[in-house]
Amino acid sequence: MTLAEQVLAGDRLALARLLTLVENDDAQGLTALDELYPHTGTAHLIGLTGGTGTGKSTLVNQLARYVRSEGIRNTDGGQSPVRVAVVAVDPTSPFTGGAILGDRIRMRDLAGDAGVFIRSMATRGALGGLANRTRPVVQTLDAAGFDWILIETVGAGQSEVEVARMAHTTIVVEAPGLGDEVQAIKAGILETADLLVLNKADLPGAERAAAALRTSLRLGSPDPMGEGTGWTVPILMTVATDGAGVAELVESLCQHRQYLAASGEWERRVRLRVEREVRDLLQRDLLARLLDRQADGRFDQILGQVEARQLSPRAAVDLLMRQAGS
Amino acid sequence: MTLAEQVLAGDRLALARLLTLVENDDAQGLTALDELYPHTGTAHLIGLTGGTGTGKSTLVNQLARYVRSEGIRNTDGGQSPVRVAVVAVDPTSPFTGGAILGDRIRMRDLAGDAGVFIRSMATRGALGGLANRTRPVVQTLDAAGFDWILIETVGAGQSEVEVARMAHTTIVVEAPGLGDEVQAIKAGILETADLLVLNKADLPGAERAAAALRTSLRLGSPDPMGEGTGWTVPILMTVATDGAGVAELVESLCQHRQYLAASGEWERRVRLRVEREVRDLLQRDLLARLLDRQADGRFDQILGQVEARQLSPRAAVDLLMRQAGS
Repeated sequence: MTLAEQVLAGDRLALARLLTLVENDDAQGLTALDELYPHTGTAHLIGLTGGTGTGKSTLVNQLARYVRSEGIRNTDGGQSPVRVAVVAVDPTSPFTGGAILGDRIRMRDLAGDAGVFIRSMATRGALGGLANRTRPVVQTLDAAGFDWILIETVGAGQSEVEVARMAHTTIVVEAPGLGDEVQAIKAGILETADLLVLNKADLPGAERAAAALRTSLRLGSPDPMGEGTGWTVPILMTVATDGAGVAELVESLCQHRQYLAASGEWERRVRLRVEREVRDLLQRDLLARLLDRQADGRFDQILGQVEARQLSPRAAVDLLMRQAGS
Repeated sequence: MTLAEQVLAGDRLALARLLTLVENDDAQGLTALDELYPHTGTAHLIGLTGGTGTGKSTLVNQLARYVRSEGIRNTDGGQSPVRVAVVAVDPTSPFTGGAILGDRIRMRDLAGDAGVFIRSMATRGALGGLANRTRPVVQTLDAAGFDWILIETVGAGQSEVEVARMAHTTIVVEAPGLGDEVQAIKAGILETADLLVLNKADLPGAERAAAALRTSLRLGSPDPMGEGTGWTVPILMTVATDGAGVAELVESLCQHRQYLAASGEWERRVRLRVEREVRDLLQRDLLARLLDRQADGRFDQILGQVEARQLSPRAAVDLLMRQAGS
């Protein structure tokens, strides 16, 4: 059996091994991923982003636990209870490959359930950013038959946008009283949200924070009531530490999936994702080929001229493009 | 006079106008920037990153005010007091071009001083990320004769790395008691720091936080005492709201500049920056050319095949590369 076949057969060790290979851009891993690609496309990709201190990770844990213990099925009438994979992306850590402290703590809660798989990834400083590193991991889990893939990361601008572009559904997590509230809920952050969660809703100030979020949504969204799209962004209150509100969150996720399917938005998002991935890979390969074809030392020589301010970066690029051209 | 000449002559309105043009990738602006490029390369680029609530912006304001009011000169014996530009990069905002609320508040303090220039930028979701958007702005300010360019942004993983790659000197700002301290000082974050600032040092817990930072530095740095490089990362305590510690911070910045010059590290960092910029621009132009040369509808057709899982993304890229190849 090939590695891909082992993964399709449900071998968890093979899956873990393949994830490590694709994370490291290993040729054998990428070949296996090509073999698996026809089996992807069924998972519901759910991005989950929020700042430090919002309790995101605990919420993800509770979500996975609830979905599994209740035997939740997809709204399209899935045959069996949803299987859940978690990809915990850490854009602040440069250490790659496998279990970070978080994994082990999380594993304790969900250990022994073959319907759950948790993977931590470090993406800090990764070539091509968060998306390039995360995509093959998500695709592998998709092919391995996980129905929900929760992609969790710390949100601060760019990474939020990247996660939103990777997912079908994006959940933005906030918490009351996180420093400057004006910053936390500033316009723009909310634009990527399909669902908005106010976690730690038992803290003082939760009601005020929810009201502020509601106002921001109204002001910041081009279509707050979903008149154009048929989707109104809900604000959900949760207390991840005791599981309050998690059932309603799962309900909302299922509704969003229904909305995506019914409105054609599912296909539209998949299309954008595919285009982005192909463009990113093309850029990388085109540059590699151009550099490969340079005479020895030629590229360095041109860089030296830019460094010496004899050539502007744009002029250097024009020179290299003309040369590679025709 | 061309726009570039007006900028060189110190015309602030022309400068503001050119910044808007280059930010929007306008052809006229990019031509002016090419004209200005030989005049760049003298500014000390100082990256300043830290989480929400660390008081970064206030610190940047105080830095600029102190440098100007004391008439600080560069250690290489600059003829006149240092002129300071601030580029406040907001990776959480998608709104581009010109004054955000922050600008106006900041301006109040520093208004009327021709030796200070402040520019806010939104970079959220920007094509090619933070660096591609920020570089032309920084280069324009460099050519306009600003001696220090403070590039300030919210730090969370990727954006920190990008800022560090753009700057000669990187300052990481922390504050006591920001939620989970273990997260704030986790290994990896500190790696990019040349200077470490604990702001809000008058808050309870400041001493403990400083001790924790010191430990993290010792554990996390490959060369904590700078034996290999000759540079020891200092931990500076500041209270930006009343200016305490700002003089010491400026002193440290001047020392770091001396170290960069003496060690050859200045050139090494410039070289890396130039290489990164040329690579990024090349990737963008190569992709544009490849897409431009496709027969009508060909690229969309291939994307459709990937969407339908008939073709893996890598196979699609191989196909397009072979076609463009020779």
